[in-house]
Amino acid sequence: MSKLIGAAIFGQSGGPSSVINSSAAGVFQTALKEECITKVYGAAHGIRGMLDEEFYDMSKEDPYEIELLKTTPSSALGSVRYKLKDADVDDTDYKRLLEVFKKYNIRYFFYNGGNDSMDTCNKISKYMQKSGYEMRVMGVPKTIDNDLYGTDHCPGYGSAAKYVATSTMEVYQDARVYDTGMVAVLEVMGRHAGWLTASTALAAYKGMGPDLIYVPELPFSMEQYLADVKRVYEKQGKCIVAVSEGAQYADGRFVADSGVRDAFGHAQLGGVATTLANAAKEAIGCKVRGIEFSLLQRCAAHCGSLTDVNEAHMAGEQAVKKAVEGFTDYCIGFERATDEAGNYRCLPKMIPLSDIANTEKKLPREWINAEGNFITEDYVKYALPLIQGESHPPVEDGLPRFAHLAKIK
Amino acid sequence: MSKLIGAAIFGQSGGPSSVINSSAAGVFQTALKEECITKVYGAAHGIRGMLDEEFYDMSKEDPYEIELLKTTPSSALGSVRYKLKDADVDDTDYKRLLEVFKKYNIRYFFYNGGNDSMDTCNKISKYMQKSGYEMRVMGVPKTIDNDLYGTDHCPGYGSAAKYVATSTMEVYQDARVYDTGMVAVLEVMGRHAGWLTASTALAAYKGMGPDLIYVPELPFSMEQYLADVKRVYEKQGKCIVAVSEGAQYADGRFVADSGVRDAFGHAQLGGVATTLANAAKEAIGCKVRGIEFSLLQRCAAHCGSLTDVNEAHMAGEQAVKKAVEGFTDYCIGFERATDEAGNYRCLPKMIPLSDIANTEKKLPREWINAEGNFITEDYVKYALPLIQGESHPPVEDGLPRFAHLAKIK
Repeated sequence: MSKLIGAAIFGQSGGPSSVINSSAAGVFQTALKEECITKVYGAAHGIRGMLDEEFYDMSKEDPYEIELLKTTPSSALGSVRYKLKDADVDDTDYKRLLEVFKKYNIRYFFYNGGNDSMDTCNKISKYMQKSGYEMRVMGVPKTIDNDLYGTDHCPGYGSAAKYVATSTMEVYQDARVYDTGMVAVLEVMGRHAGWLTASTALAAYKGMGPDLIYVPELPFSMEQYLADVKRVYEKQGKCIVAVSEGAQYADGRFVADSGVRDAFGHAQLGGVATTLANAAKEAIGCKVRGIEFSLLQRCAAHCGSLTDVNEAHMAGEQAVKKAVEGFTDYCIGFERATDEAGNYRCLPKMIPLSDIANTEKKLPREWINAEGNFITEDYVKYALPLIQGESHPPVEDGLPRFAHLAKIK
Repeated sequence: MSKLIGAAIFGQSGGPSSVINSSAAGVFQTALKEECITKVYGAAHGIRGMLDEEFYDMSKEDPYEIELLKTTPSSALGSVRYKLKDADVDDTDYKRLLEVFKKYNIRYFFYNGGNDSMDTCNKISKYMQKSGYEMRVMGVPKTIDNDLYGTDHCPGYGSAAKYVATSTMEVYQDARVYDTGMVAVLEVMGRHAGWLTASTALAAYKGMGPDLIYVPELPFSMEQYLADVKRVYEKQGKCIVAVSEGAQYADGRFVADSGVRDAFGHAQLGGVATTLANAAKEAIGCKVRGIEFSLLQRCAAHCGSLTDVNEAHMAGEQAVKKAVEGFTDYCIGFERATDEAGNYRCLPKMIPLSDIANTEKKLPREWINAEGNFITEDYVKYALPLIQGESHPPVEDGLPRFAHLAKIK
């Protein structure tokens, strides 16, 4: 295929992770070296910045700051949650994008996000093709939720899993310290898939994990939960529970909707951890504590997985290389391989955008135990390679030194 | 003074920290080398284990595991919250302790905890003196709250402050990522003193911290808070707030008591972060998020301060050395010094137990700004040396390797 000459643009979208910026570094560092890429732009707030012509010239950034992106959490360029309408319903945004792309001769489009973002990529690519505007569109995956279709795992997951497992081990040490009873409930991110909640099983594998794990792949039953907690508590006087934020009853009600109303009659979403901790208190009468890992689990770059950081970087690099080679309409994915010594290796693969867009990959049923309250060893075997190696940002004054981009328009 | 020959016992008490076990390592490693100390016992659950004769022979532990205590969070021997009655009211416990001490010829008593624990030390020492039982009693300080009287700072504080400041910087990155408005409220431990909440100012010093900080040293005003948040939000479209869990209104009511009642009419203590986030939502109508650092801030050994870990170890070592030298009824404290090059140094000092027991040290008023909504640079100068150096546990399978004590009775 002939080399397409023009500018490249990169945007970040959806919920941030510890390593989305590592992918950005992979894209920028590779694109800045490619001869056929005349300019490298970083869009402010993803598609929003492209529509508003708000983007930065990445060649003007200090290369050291771009290198620091590898260990800087969240989305350095700003993220966005913006769903493009179908072009046949309303093509205003698409027309505007085409105008902007033409103005800056943007021929390479890289977009970093989860399945919604891949849907955005796909729609844009289709529209540009229909309009006869030659462009190479490549997706770079990311999601701490690990729920993208067609890839062994997603960049962002390993670091989040490492943080959740490490913190769970530490909470295990803390929550069992007194000679009095205690039920601790850990709430982990994941609305529809239990991948990240499952990572608490890594702590259990080290003998310092939860006694019970509930994921949203199966309907939640308050009766079973209380029976489970009582059984564990009666045996050991302590119980640690891990639960996904998205836990739902069989009828579709969220467990987080505790039924409590405020002074105005509004439902108070107390959080799953608080709801389940309170239910245990009511049933057993012991001390309880609900702990929500909250935003910390998706931005804890100080406890990153080096494997994850490197793979995220590789995904960005591959997206640029494949686009330059002439590919378009793919998202970079990962294939798990084994080297001659039997060690884990991660190889890049290409997943058609139309396959990955809007599809969710759940935790396999066989990785959840029969009772639906724990995670099996097959998951542990799957996840362990993803959390290997320690990634820390450089330290200045005892605190992380994150990237400061100059953001020159 | 003559050398007192006999066994030593060590107990851990009160809320755990990342480095209470480092002090334990300091006590054990030093005591095991002292000739006049015939046996070294570790008490299960502090004073409780002493009363129940449940203690472990530390000479039977693998020295490598004792070394690992330096980077193992929480209280490896188990902690306790048990307040001894005054001996003139009820001397049952004291009689029992004397019996146990005599039985095992325990002549050295080391106790690791906060001001309540120092009160325990003091009462025991006085009783043993009155009974004519020769014993050396030394306290080893610890508290993430940093509120002990007579010492420049407390072991445990530096690591908790480092974790809180680091996590605040990470949340700052994450909470500002979208182009939409956001108020995030971070809840930090500290019932009566704002030392740990103040540590978010270290993140602000790095340009990635809260806009507003509220500590319990001053009464909380919902009117001022809402006016403050509105002002910041109108200017920048985002606002990050740090607040102590113990924030109280001028009339003594806790901010955490949100007034919400559950189906049974019980007050729901929603947590300060949730309460203040909801109040901001009501007033501004923007997206909000309440984040509670919860137990994580006192057990995150994976993000420990090496300065703190080493100082905690030194405090344990000094307690044994001073007791062997003949001192009793003191708690080890820290004096801040400067070496010839102007660098921070930490020297041990001895604080009479009767001075330290039950006294709380608050954040100085002049380290809180005039408006009562931020922390001054004097605090930053004070705290920076305490968070220097990175302490990580050794890693095994990508996860921390904590100490496993054999606990042989």
